[in-house]
Amino acid sequence: MPYIDLNADVGESFGNWTMGNDAAIFVPVSSANVACGFHAGDPSVIAQTCRDAVAAGVTIGAHVGYRDLAGFGRRFLDCSPTELADDVLYQLGALEALARAAGAGIKYVKPHGALYNTIVHHEAHAQAVVDAIRAFGSDLPVLLLPGSVALTKAAAAGLRPVAEAFADRNYNPDGTLVSRREANAVLHDAGQVTENMVRLVTEAKIVAIDGSVIPMNVESICMHGDTAGAVDMATAVRAGLENAGVSIKSFV
Amino acid sequence: MPYIDLNADVGESFGNWTMGNDAAIFVPVSSANVACGFHAGDPSVIAQTCRDAVAAGVTIGAHVGYRDLAGFGRRFLDCSPTELADDVLYQLGALEALARAAGAGIKYVKPHGALYNTIVHHEAHAQAVVDAIRAFGSDLPVLLLPGSVALTKAAAAGLRPVAEAFADRNYNPDGTLVSRREANAVLHDAGQVTENMVRLVTEAKIVAIDGSVIPMNVESICMHGDTAGAVDMATAVRAGLENAGVSIKSFV
Amino acid sequence: MPYIDLNADVGESFGNWTMGNDAAIFVPVSSANVACGFHAGDPSVIAQTCRDAVAAGVTIGAHVGYRDLAGFGRRFLDCSPTELADDVLYQLGALEALARAAGAGIKYVKPHGALYNTIVHHEAHAQAVVDAIRAFGSDLPVLLLPGSVALTKAAAAGLRPVAEAFADRNYNPDGTLVSRREANAVLHDAGQVTENMVRLVTEAKIVAIDGSVIPMNVESICMHGDTAGAVDMATAVRAGLENAGVSIKSFV
Amino acid sequence: MPYIDLNADVGESFGNWTMGNDAAIFVPVSSANVACGFHAGDPSVIAQTCRDAVAAGVTIGAHVGYRDLAGFGRRFLDCSPTELADDVLYQLGALEALARAAGAGIKYVKPHGALYNTIVHHEAHAQAVVDAIRAFGSDLPVLLLPGSVALTKAAAAGLRPVAEAFADRNYNPDGTLVSRREANAVLHDAGQVTENMVRLVTEAKIVAIDGSVIPMNVESICMHGDTAGAVDMATAVRAGLENAGVSIKSFV
Repeated sequence: MPYIDLNADVGESFGNWTMGNDAAIFVPVSSANVACGFHAGDPSVIAQTCRDAVAAGVTIGAHVGYRDLAGFGRRFLDCSPTELADDVLYQLGALEALARAAGAGIKYVKPHGALYNTIVHHEAHAQAVVDAIRAFGSDLPVLLLPGSVALTKAAAAGLRPVAEAFADRNYNPDGTLVSRREANAVLHDAGQVTENMVRLVTEAKIVAIDGSVIPMNVESICMHGDTAGAVDMATAVRAGLENAGVSIKSFV
Repeated sequence: MPYIDLNADVGESFGNWTMGNDAAIFVPVSSANVACGFHAGDPSVIAQTCRDAVAAGVTIGAHVGYRDLAGFGRRFLDCSPTELADDVLYQLGALEALARAAGAGIKYVKPHGALYNTIVHHEAHAQAVVDAIRAFGSDLPVLLLPGSVALTKAAAAGLRPVAEAFADRNYNPDGTLVSRREANAVLHDAGQVTENMVRLVTEAKIVAIDGSVIPMNVESICMHGDTAGAVDMATAVRAGLENAGVSIKSFV
Repeated sequence: MPYIDLNADVGESFGNWTMGNDAAIFVPVSSANVACGFHAGDPSVIAQTCRDAVAAGVTIGAHVGYRDLAGFGRRFLDCSPTELADDVLYQLGALEALARAAGAGIKYVKPHGALYNTIVHHEAHAQAVVDAIRAFGSDLPVLLLPGSVALTKAAAAGLRPVAEAFADRNYNPDGTLVSRREANAVLHDAGQVTENMVRLVTEAKIVAIDGSVIPMNVESICMHGDTAGAVDMATAVRAGLENAGVSIKSFV
Repeated sequence: MPYIDLNADVGESFGNWTMGNDAAIFVPVSSANVACGFHAGDPSVIAQTCRDAVAAGVTIGAHVGYRDLAGFGRRFLDCSPTELADDVLYQLGALEALARAAGAGIKYVKPHGALYNTIVHHEAHAQAVVDAIRAFGSDLPVLLLPGSVALTKAAAAGLRPVAEAFADRNYNPDGTLVSRREANAVLHDAGQVTENMVRLVTEAKIVAIDGSVIPMNVESICMHGDTAGAVDMATAVRAGLENAGVSIKSFV
């Protein structure tokens, strides 16, 4: 029976500011990328998120980012590899303590925002993230775009590289994401998205923006959870996959 | 053979700002209170400090504080007990990851600055610190002033309370510290300080500011390390203690 | 013709986190307490808020707070009076620059959150806020609870003290607010709130929680604007006041 | 009689962390680049620095930077032009309030660290800084490397571009600075530096690292002030210039 992981970002509230609808998104997904305090998530938010993830039976991943609360980790920060590795290790340790107190632990690492996009191609920052995971004394899988430099480096360091797709994004014929600056970058129709994801999981293919069918192997699908519409889409995708005989479960 | 622990604050640099002379203070002391990033210490500073502590054979303690970089953790912050417990747990996890990468681990907890002073008497904040240590899944000793509310709560929670003295501070006849607002609060003569500490360790007595001799049982002595003079005093106190047949070693 | 000012907190988003419904609350109110970056409000949020306030014809006040983003300025911070005065002056200057770029300027000061509550009674912090306003080179009015220490000190320093009421809060017979820890602290019925505010403005009286009628003189009424219900209530109060022949306008 | 401005960075302490020797560097220089709180400088540090600058008769400039305390503003941050412009405007306003309270005001703007280096060539960030100065409602001069994109944009916006040299840096034959990654990037001999600066001011020439003599027109010279040696060098340069008949005074 085929299976796939559905992941979403959670724990991104901060202090008095609420973001996302974590309680609702925990229902359809199997993995939760929990913010670690550097781009979002204060310790009490993280602690509650970990307890909620455990209660929902959802696997916890570390959503590590650049140190940039004001920019929500979405701005490239030209830190040194050493600074980045230490920042990531600090975040991993902090989240691990809060996850353990909730009865769980970090099971994978998914870089956030600008760090995610950067280590698709930036050799030094990619290596720094891998080094931090190794220094954490673990062999945590790394979740990223297929073909990323960081996945190659993760594999070279003995870590398990896990490729993911984005459910609501259009793809170029070469397998890269259509830039958000272009029209049709984002798909809004839940039916179309579900159809795409069923095909992806059962046939390892995705239909690119030009109609060409390209091969794609992923172990996880990223869903958004920050709006009611996003939760609805995640729910629809999960139902569609299950109806197609696909089981939803964590890749770890 | 009698023995005592000497502890000092380290890892309090931040980014481009340097504080203290950690390399020098690692020589005379046996325990290092390492900043955890909330009052001081960025991840790279903490990582380097842990490596240096390990190289020097010094035991690592977590110097947890209020979230207040601008105030260096020296200002009371009226956070909720839940916020405080989560903040402390976050700091413990972060430091643990960096200490482990250096080949060590947290062996005790010493609250910093305003948090230290607050939990001498503040029931809810004292309990929050104890709760965080328990949530960390450990039975780490807590280092504080003799008679502190937090030491009582630590013991009640099954943690080991460790009392400490301040080498360069004068004491009131009731065993409390003479306030820094008063003259003679701080002792500057290394010979007098050394004599006091030898008496403290070998006779469990301290001479108060009025000349009265009071009983005092401690397992550690706090030394300052942020100036050249402070390092010299720590070096003198260690030499004086060793000359008096006292061994310097961690209480853990 | 009687008149009154209606004020509300705005500009409290931060980075990627949105708070409140500023566009909606600008319609019923005459004064906007704009966050200055220390408890909420990043520079771009503040800039946009000032432009929106100008477009809506709403007067800008400086909503200064303790330096505590993680606590949203709602936690007492035991900073020194000098630190507080400098922090407030820094915030005033920052907001003034952004308000001027929008074609306006700061017209009053309303402390936020824990700072607001603290300077109702805390002499040193009250004086620090007053000192900062004087150092700003202005004679900006200060908006606070009637009877506050800070209003007395403001008057003594030549500043105009402006008392405000809270539309949706119940009052004790001595004119203080019923604590939020008690039942009935907050009023939820828009009709009752409107009736109370019309009486307050036209008769300078308020009905306390025990039914007694007490005298109260205020120049402004604080409305909440962070929820749809709060905006509805503000709209209802404004309509009720106008129907009673009361004009809504800034106190400056 | 020829004259030149000598500038140095000041106000870069933060909270409990001290940096530089501002009191000493105020003696030889005529202009002070005062940190504005985003890369360094808390409000109380800035306030004291402004008072000291006024007492020393030194002109105050705004040393604006990226929002990055942990990186001391030395790391490129890929913020949007709008974010950058608003961040700079916020800093200008904050410093202006503190400078005014000290009896002075901002007289020029010198970007700091990574922002300085970035707007030598980065069109959008250069324009954002210029836009912020215009939005501040002023025509403050901008201090930067000769040939910088930001100086061109400043001039186009009606601001006065002011070029500066670095006293202790070696130059390439094309007039750019020798990278710090190369040997001989920094000059350490006060006599050689002084000779170079006298030639620069009196002959508008500098000797490049290959011995070639190149033309260079500047209105200010940047001196370091963060170490005792740096202060000594600034003092020597000033004395050497004055001995050569050059007057030291601000360019404004």
